[in-house]
Amino acid sequence: MSGVFITFEGIDQSGKSTQIEHLVEQLNAKCPGREVVRTFEPGATELGAKLRTEILHGDAINARAELLLYLADRAENVSKIVLPALARGCVVISDRYIDSTVAYQCVGRKFSEPEIAKMMHFATDGLVPDLTFLLDITVAESRRRLSTLNADRLEQENNEFFERVRSGYLKLTEKERRIYTLDATLPADNLARKIYEVVLNVLD
Amino acid sequence: MSGVFITFEGIDQSGKSTQIEHLVEQLNAKCPGREVVRTFEPGATELGAKLRTEILHGDAINARAELLLYLADRAENVSKIVLPALARGCVVISDRYIDSTVAYQCVGRKFSEPEIAKMMHFATDGLVPDLTFLLDITVAESRRRLSTLNADRLEQENNEFFERVRSGYLKLTEKERRIYTLDATLPADNLARKIYEVVLNVLD
Repeated sequence: MSGVFITFEGIDQSGKSTQIEHLVEQLNAKCPGREVVRTFEPGATELGAKLRTEILHGDAINARAELLLYLADRAENVSKIVLPALARGCVVISDRYIDSTVAYQCVGRKFSEPEIAKMMHFATDGLVPDLTFLLDITVAESRRRLSTLNADRLEQENNEFFERVRSGYLKLTEKERRIYTLDATLPADNLARKIYEVVLNVLD
Repeated sequence: MSGVFITFEGIDQSGKSTQIEHLVEQLNAKCPGREVVRTFEPGATELGAKLRTEILHGDAINARAELLLYLADRAENVSKIVLPALARGCVVISDRYIDSTVAYQCVGRKFSEPEIAKMMHFATDGLVPDLTFLLDITVAESRRRLSTLNADRLEQENNEFFERVRSGYLKLTEKERRIYTLDATLPADNLARKIYEVVLNVLD
């Protein structure tokens, strides 16, 4: 039984956490022999938790430094959590991974995509997900869902930035066959059913 | 008056801090119109100080994550300290910079040099020093000088690693004309005089 690496992507408030919870529950209930490991970016490792604080709540960081911190978090997450779990044959489910960097940093912050692609390859040692769910919502819908009370720094970016991020995600779906795009305004149960069906097809 | 960027390199205990102090004193005494800004890696910025703690004293970090943290520290240092000071026409003196990454990470940890070169270019936005002093000592001499009592994690690496680092530095001197190599076993006053002479030649 080989490991399967599944990632969830989308702008804030697209419902990634809810869908990941549903999927973990379903897998645990219906595939009891299969260990499920859940991770996220940034912040899943001990180092990552400290980096997350700096990225999301620290003083304004240079955009290049910010990207490098995301990649450091990812390198640690891949080496300490994802790869060991895949080696044990687990289903590993990550809330955000490489596509977030393309959407937020390359398209959102306008860094060069080929340059960033090489750095991501270094950080992950080339690990690409088997399957990715993009939960797509409009920026207006994301704003509507977002309580502005606890917005972290990234969530306070302007609408134009998030429009670029969303379009970055949608462009990725055109060239990456592993990405399965879903309308995230559908009812959560409906989405959960679709996601579970797709996942069952990739499990051996 | 344009800014001048000077870096000091060498393995631990090669006397970089002492020579930087000498140079700063000399410049302040003899070139009073010239503002001197001193910086170092890792740890000169607020973000960098936190990253330094993780790199040098935290739990064992994946080598790729470690490199990315060094680059994040550098990106923040370049954007917040070095570039603004150079724009003001300062002499900026840094304890370690890009050559440390080549020597420690590419040669020491055996990462691919062309791959790392591109990442360094991203982190620094292409900023290369005007002048670099490599204070060269043997690993045996470095060990002799090192009190093992307060050795941080990097200093606890084995001799073979430091031999690679030293050879990495020496190889760099063959292709980078900006690097001025000095025998760091010479008396400190003697070295300080040589360094100051070379620096005077690059100041306008």
